[in-house]
Amino acid sequence: MDSALEIASDDDRRSCWVCFATDEDDLEASWVEPCKCKGTTKWVHQQCLQRWIDEKQRVNHTQRVNCPQCNTEYLIFFPKFGPFVYVLDLVDRLLYRVSPLLTAAVVLGSVYWSALTYGGITILLVSGQNEGVRIIEQADPIFLSVTLPTIPVMLIVIKMVPWDNYLLKLWWRHASRLPDMRGLCSSLRGELPGNTFVEPPETVNRLLDRTLLNDSYSATRVFVSALMLPAVGALVGRTCFSGVRTPLQRTLLGCFSFIMVKGVFKIYLRRKQVLRQLKRKVLNYGDDINEDEELALYGEDED
Amino acid sequence: MDSALEIASDDDRRSCWVCFATDEDDLEASWVEPCKCKGTTKWVHQQCLQRWIDEKQRVNHTQRVNCPQCNTEYLIFFPKFGPFVYVLDLVDRLLYRVSPLLTAAVVLGSVYWSALTYGGITILLVSGQNEGVRIIEQADPIFLSVTLPTIPVMLIVIKMVPWDNYLLKLWWRHASRLPDMRGLCSSLRGELPGNTFVEPPETVNRLLDRTLLNDSYSATRVFVSALMLPAVGALVGRTCFSGVRTPLQRTLLGCFSFIMVKGVFKIYLRRKQVLRQLKRKVLNYGDDINEDEELALYGEDED
Repeated sequence: MDSALEIASDDDRRSCWVCFATDEDDLEASWVEPCKCKGTTKWVHQQCLQRWIDEKQRVNHTQRVNCPQCNTEYLIFFPKFGPFVYVLDLVDRLLYRVSPLLTAAVVLGSVYWSALTYGGITILLVSGQNEGVRIIEQADPIFLSVTLPTIPVMLIVIKMVPWDNYLLKLWWRHASRLPDMRGLCSSLRGELPGNTFVEPPETVNRLLDRTLLNDSYSATRVFVSALMLPAVGALVGRTCFSGVRTPLQRTLLGCFSFIMVKGVFKIYLRRKQVLRQLKRKVLNYGDDINEDEELALYGEDED
Repeated sequence: MDSALEIASDDDRRSCWVCFATDEDDLEASWVEPCKCKGTTKWVHQQCLQRWIDEKQRVNHTQRVNCPQCNTEYLIFFPKFGPFVYVLDLVDRLLYRVSPLLTAAVVLGSVYWSALTYGGITILLVSGQNEGVRIIEQADPIFLSVTLPTIPVMLIVIKMVPWDNYLLKLWWRHASRLPDMRGLCSSLRGELPGNTFVEPPETVNRLLDRTLLNDSYSATRVFVSALMLPAVGALVGRTCFSGVRTPLQRTLLGCFSFIMVKGVFKIYLRRKQVLRQLKRKVLNYGDDINEDEELALYGEDED
């Protein structure tokens, strides 16, 4: 009987779990029991709880807040807006939602407009000024608005095909069966005494893949060289194929020969780079560096 | 004497720390002592060490590799490139370095071109088609290439000035001394029994700052509304100020009145939003929601 009475009186004496003040400390403060908690922890001052919620919502002021003890979500009442303010609030929130989409649209529009302009300039470059203007003026504007921006896109897509890498791998696979490669392997042994092992094919393939992967990962390089191709092609065409009649044929020939020559150089260089990697040798500690040979410490010579 | 002999013979019997094979296991393998380590751990097969280094350099093949025991950096010898391959390699690395810069230049150029176009369209919108074309044709091309792109930039910069926020704060500071605000505070007490405290000024200021900060942080909103201002201004000018003579005056009047009306609405809405936040109340657990009042749980009504 005694303990039941004591619990009842404990329950009657309210104490705020934020400021620990009781009814006697502050007669005017308003109380709230916002959660499933029982006993002394169930009471809290309205004002104290609001401050506590403000603290919790400091980063995101729409975050839901729960009781730290019983995890009940607090129900928060907001007075109703008048109809005019309600509409204003609705418009405000709509603008807030729509702005990122509109910004994305502006950015896309800007990219489209640049691609369209690039396409037009490319037509002028490839076909020559007079013929280019004639083509653009005679074509259907809707047709142009679709085809011109696809020109840079197509250039980049085509540039992304790693045909030179395929050729390099093909070369390597067949070269290993030719006298050239066998001679190289033995000269390798001769040149570098102590490095008498012949690299297993897996090592070669791994090195090859690593070198080529590194290469194709440079997205900016693909992008830049794709966009510069028409200008370079026109330049090469005008320089090397001035005998060819139409500017279109001249530029196409220029582009094609530039791609071929560049591809051959690139394949050759990549092969040499892989061979160099294969021929590397770890030196004995304290070994004198042979002055005839260039010692290239990795991290300095390679990037 | 015995132990010294034993150490010497131990030192003579080489054992690879990667594959644990000794001289007897593989007579042909080449050995290297690449670090300061003494004793049995100083020897390693050239081929084993290379594989081990490959493993370490899997992510970054130019990373320096050290001995895991004595931390000596391994010196790795690379054979010299021929002069032709050296030049190719140099050009290759130069292209690799320059590509990101060129890509950035392309992106900047694209932004510039879009801003230039936007500036031109704005001139046409604000001054009317005929007058706009005349202005652009008569102006110096270099002057236009500088001024036209600055038009969108200036619009965005001007839009970033939060004049409405300043006005709202000013209003609040003075309203608290006016009967209106005092009446509001007492009606607040009357409307929400139990919520009898008056918010201290710090709470009001904090809420105000939070509401406005949220607002000015929406960069996309500033961007979009700045870029749309000339079009909206021209529309408002044509609709509301058709009596005004020149298109320029009409559009400027349209812009100005639009900004003013929108600003007043915005200040009013923000004030109401802060007041609503001040009037919120945490409900008792299990309280019946009064159907006359709208219960707006945060997270659903607010975003």
